[in-house]
Amino acid sequence: MYRFNNDYSLNAHPAVLKAVSDISGHAYGGYGLDEICTEAADLIKARIGAPDADVHFLVGGTQTNYTVISAALLPYQSVLCAESGHINVHETGAVEHIGHKITALPHTDGKITAGQIAKAGEDFRISDVQEHITEPGMVYISFPTEYGTVYTLQELEEIRTACDEYGLVLFIDGARLGYGLAAEGNDVTIQDIARIADVFYIGGTKCGALFGEAVVIRNKRIGHRFRSHIKQNGGMLAKGFLLGAQFRALFADDLYFKITEQAVGKAMRIKEAFREKGIPSYIESPTNQQFVLLTDRQCAVFSENFVFENEGTAEDGMHISRFCTSWGTTEEETEALISAIRDLNI
Amino acid sequence: MYRFNNDYSLNAHPAVLKAVSDISGHAYGGYGLDEICTEAADLIKARIGAPDADVHFLVGGTQTNYTVISAALLPYQSVLCAESGHINVHETGAVEHIGHKITALPHTDGKITAGQIAKAGEDFRISDVQEHITEPGMVYISFPTEYGTVYTLQELEEIRTACDEYGLVLFIDGARLGYGLAAEGNDVTIQDIARIADVFYIGGTKCGALFGEAVVIRNKRIGHRFRSHIKQNGGMLAKGFLLGAQFRALFADDLYFKITEQAVGKAMRIKEAFREKGIPSYIESPTNQQFVLLTDRQCAVFSENFVFENEGTAEDGMHISRFCTSWGTTEEETEALISAIRDLNI
Amino acid sequence: MYRFNNDYSLNAHPAVLKAVSDISGHAYGGYGLDEICTEAADLIKARIGAPDADVHFLVGGTQTNYTVISAALLPYQSVLCAESGHINVHETGAVEHIGHKITALPHTDGKITAGQIAKAGEDFRISDVQEHITEPGMVYISFPTEYGTVYTLQELEEIRTACDEYGLVLFIDGARLGYGLAAEGNDVTIQDIARIADVFYIGGTKCGALFGEAVVIRNKRIGHRFRSHIKQNGGMLAKGFLLGAQFRALFADDLYFKITEQAVGKAMRIKEAFREKGIPSYIESPTNQQFVLLTDRQCAVFSENFVFENEGTAEDGMHISRFCTSWGTTEEETEALISAIRDLNI
Amino acid sequence: MYRFNNDYSLNAHPAVLKAVSDISGHAYGGYGLDEICTEAADLIKARIGAPDADVHFLVGGTQTNYTVISAALLPYQSVLCAESGHINVHETGAVEHIGHKITALPHTDGKITAGQIAKAGEDFRISDVQEHITEPGMVYISFPTEYGTVYTLQELEEIRTACDEYGLVLFIDGARLGYGLAAEGNDVTIQDIARIADVFYIGGTKCGALFGEAVVIRNKRIGHRFRSHIKQNGGMLAKGFLLGAQFRALFADDLYFKITEQAVGKAMRIKEAFREKGIPSYIESPTNQQFVLLTDRQCAVFSENFVFENEGTAEDGMHISRFCTSWGTTEEETEALISAIRDLNI
Repeated sequence: MYRFNNDYSLNAHPAVLKAVSDISGHAYGGYGLDEICTEAADLIKARIGAPDADVHFLVGGTQTNYTVISAALLPYQSVLCAESGHINVHETGAVEHIGHKITALPHTDGKITAGQIAKAGEDFRISDVQEHITEPGMVYISFPTEYGTVYTLQELEEIRTACDEYGLVLFIDGARLGYGLAAEGNDVTIQDIARIADVFYIGGTKCGALFGEAVVIRNKRIGHRFRSHIKQNGGMLAKGFLLGAQFRALFADDLYFKITEQAVGKAMRIKEAFREKGIPSYIESPTNQQFVLLTDRQCAVFSENFVFENEGTAEDGMHISRFCTSWGTTEEETEALISAIRDLNI
Repeated sequence: MYRFNNDYSLNAHPAVLKAVSDISGHAYGGYGLDEICTEAADLIKARIGAPDADVHFLVGGTQTNYTVISAALLPYQSVLCAESGHINVHETGAVEHIGHKITALPHTDGKITAGQIAKAGEDFRISDVQEHITEPGMVYISFPTEYGTVYTLQELEEIRTACDEYGLVLFIDGARLGYGLAAEGNDVTIQDIARIADVFYIGGTKCGALFGEAVVIRNKRIGHRFRSHIKQNGGMLAKGFLLGAQFRALFADDLYFKITEQAVGKAMRIKEAFREKGIPSYIESPTNQQFVLLTDRQCAVFSENFVFENEGTAEDGMHISRFCTSWGTTEEETEALISAIRDLNI
Repeated sequence: MYRFNNDYSLNAHPAVLKAVSDISGHAYGGYGLDEICTEAADLIKARIGAPDADVHFLVGGTQTNYTVISAALLPYQSVLCAESGHINVHETGAVEHIGHKITALPHTDGKITAGQIAKAGEDFRISDVQEHITEPGMVYISFPTEYGTVYTLQELEEIRTACDEYGLVLFIDGARLGYGLAAEGNDVTIQDIARIADVFYIGGTKCGALFGEAVVIRNKRIGHRFRSHIKQNGGMLAKGFLLGAQFRALFADDLYFKITEQAVGKAMRIKEAFREKGIPSYIESPTNQQFVLLTDRQCAVFSENFVFENEGTAEDGMHISRFCTSWGTTEEETEALISAIRDLNI
Repeated sequence: MYRFNNDYSLNAHPAVLKAVSDISGHAYGGYGLDEICTEAADLIKARIGAPDADVHFLVGGTQTNYTVISAALLPYQSVLCAESGHINVHETGAVEHIGHKITALPHTDGKITAGQIAKAGEDFRISDVQEHITEPGMVYISFPTEYGTVYTLQELEEIRTACDEYGLVLFIDGARLGYGLAAEGNDVTIQDIARIADVFYIGGTKCGALFGEAVVIRNKRIGHRFRSHIKQNGGMLAKGFLLGAQFRALFADDLYFKITEQAVGKAMRIKEAFREKGIPSYIESPTNQQFVLLTDRQCAVFSENFVFENEGTAEDGMHISRFCTSWGTTEEETEALISAIRDLNI
């Protein structure tokens, strides 16, 4: 079986594994207070052009999301996000568990607009019952989105402007950041992300690491005693140097960017094969996740040799099927899938 | 000025005030453990036909809502409610503050359907990522709804069936219960409510009391140590006998039902006046809240002598205006408004 | 039976009841936004010498305590208080329920010292594992304490100094404030309280009101959107004017201070009677709560005609018995108890 | 420098590292739903003699502690633990953050007794203000304790009996379980732990793993939808197979037990060296953590070549110094420390 079901089913990139192995035999400070984490943070800060940023390493995405939100918001503040936002649909109510309401906005291909944000901000500003409603305090977006799409630079700039107008923190979930930056047609750099967001994270788990997310904080208020928030929310790894070692490896020689770019390249070849075959996209994604609409029989045929994810049923009864490449997808796997698409005769 | 802006702008019904005054000079047990509360609870249990119910008296609606929800749900469970549900839009995120996600469903005139509930239950049941999503644990509906509409008995029975099928607690917010039971065309009795709901409350604040909501619990699991939940959530009045005295007065001789029925009667006359004048309803409400669509100039004319609430702007630019009667609305006020409607010449 | 068991078993002072009754027939704004609340707040601000204070009216003490704490602290901050502090022992974990740790300190007669506070502050300051422990963010004390004792002005000034040194908010629970200010030997004025505390409240429930606590906020950071905190925590009374009317009555002509002073006077006479009889105090209290040590037989004798509270058993097996006067204790009741004490022959 | 400061400053045991490396090249199910986790869980269940246990793998200790507590308790319930308990002093209020009060009990060398537990249970049972106080719902103990001491089998049996008597869940924090089981004089087996506790965990982070704690649930109520609790509390590792691989390696051929036993053996030799030298213990610990009292000058001498932890100052001004061995402590390091102790001449 060839696996295209997700981007977290493999161990880590060999360079990452080697990096973890290589630190054996030495003792390091605990809880992320060690020289490896410092080096990794320095590499990241240099690469994103933000020498004054705070960089923290957490283990996983859900943990990172609610920890950042807990640090950024006051009790009566809520988070604006797309209805499809990961915090809204796939984190078992973790954000509400620690006390905050999520106000979900309709989305287009996983994206929300500056206009929607401004409207939410304005609705609160002009409300004459402000104390009866939650105050929008943060905008949460994902880059790329849960549907693999990316915001343009102009869209991000407009969102930033709306956030500034209404005093909102902008938090960018970069669980798949590498794949988004490598997106076909993308005009956003990681420096742009670092300049525009108050806080964002560079996803490691899905981009070559064993696990780990590097949180980058630009807004000093959110950064205040952020380590206390990490610890309180269960995200402080005792052997934090394991996270440092992985990110140091990923940010040496731009490995992070190269391996995610390769994965997107493979996804684009698969996308083109689907297009040529006339199989419709469910959503036009320029990144490593491809969503196509398959018939029952097409599904059955692919399922013989490929693992992919069923994301539900479209209105016309077609299966929304996700094929996902990753840093670990091989040339052989890619070719096998492309051949299977070409050979499809139903 | 004649006030039709809401149903909580007046002191209490004279009989309630007298009841509170009459208990002067005697000492009672604290925190609701007194003979007056017992008598009031007994009156309620007899009236609703549920001798084995648990009755508790809390001070206000928001407090009651999140206390019940905190008692009823496990941490990973969420509440299903209409997008317009009070807990979703006018309680400053109180439910999320104590840890639970609200899953808001599209509504029709403030109502949700058994079908929507069953779909949400089924979606969870068949999900292969159950641990990544919140489990629907409760259905919250309001009777009457925030738009003054009421569920039919059949609708409630169907909702109950859906709740049973999917293991959901049914919680009915009765902040305006009296007005709902007196609704034009209503076929639901308070005994039906008591039979169908796991837990509901009989709103006092808007129905003749100074303050107070009588929570009726039918589901023994929710009732377990409910007083601990009340105390923990700040809802335990030291002088609980004040609540008992009010509800004892309201449930003696059916006062609660009489005064809310009168208020609905006045609202129906106002409704009819609007209809005759050709002023459109925003929503057809059979209860004490009437929502009509006014032009700018009509709004201005009414505003000279009447206080009413602006609920936003309809798509065609008309003002959604709420005129609200209450147990305290006088005949003179009613006639003044009806005359003003009839005299409108724009 | 004569009741000395607590100070919340009676209805309100007649002037308060009359004030509530007198507002009948007029309509007022909801949720505390009305002219009565404004007048009451103005009276309070004038009386405490703090024209720039924010005054809010809440219903009860537990609710007030955790709402203030929720507004004042960041997620990783804790509250320092006496082990006997009300928030620590009699509020069903309400403070923890909304997310904050209470760090309880040993107390002397219900009081903690500036030295203890400074030590806790210093322990955190010099800790090399700050992110693993909660940061003290607030000091909570009661005036008078749960044992009826009061802080001297010098003690309060020293506590303020310690709070300033370590960046701690000082919150004074004044559920029985009137009785504390009237304490025998007390040298603290309400103006002192208002000057020294960041936030405190003037308890109404136990001091002549039906219910209600007036929160006075001096620290603008805590006051920011405080109404949102009130609403989120279930403390916003729909008919807030009921609170305003009560406090307006209590602060007109210093009624609040007069009635609590009378109650303390009666308690002092009772205290003297116990002293003369040779019945030992458990704690020397100069306020309306008197704690004495009774034998089994003495307990039995008093129980024939008096209701009082058993607070546990002292080390020598004696009963810790609380006799509590209030604004409503009559001269007859007082004399009856004093006679009974004098007549005790066991 | 030789490091004896803690047991989490080294990478993992070589067999664990190899196990992680060996799973490269294959794809596994996400979030712990994979065959490796199943195998690891089966090995654990066989080893502890509890085939019907639920085994879950989480990343770290704090996360595990509050997740278990969130799953086990109702909102108004509290946790009993020693004042020195890790959840009480070193987790930044994580337990309170998710809503529960910790009731800290005085301890002896880190241990609490069945008598203390029974008293707390009885105090609640006989309380006439149960709704005003939190209900003890759980006992949290550590094996070994934070001071390296262990409970005897009889002590654990008595604690179990007290828990049964008062309806308390018994949760054993086994962050250093291996070292506790290998303690000098220990008469408790892991089968005993599994039989006596409702839930416990087998610590990996400090016992040879990169990271990871294996939670073993015996009480089915706590186990209900435990994966939802894990996800909600940020503890679900996307690549759960990394946890499975590590625990599979640790429980193959009893590696876990062998390496922790060796560490304790080294600690006992160090302890004996201190004893022979006349350096007093602060606490008599039979496990890998040794607490001794050093003078200023002794501290300074050791600090030249050894890293160890300062745990504060004893009453006589001596330094409470912790020397900690681990699975990774070498013979050379051990001998170096022992020599230094012997050579001490001040």
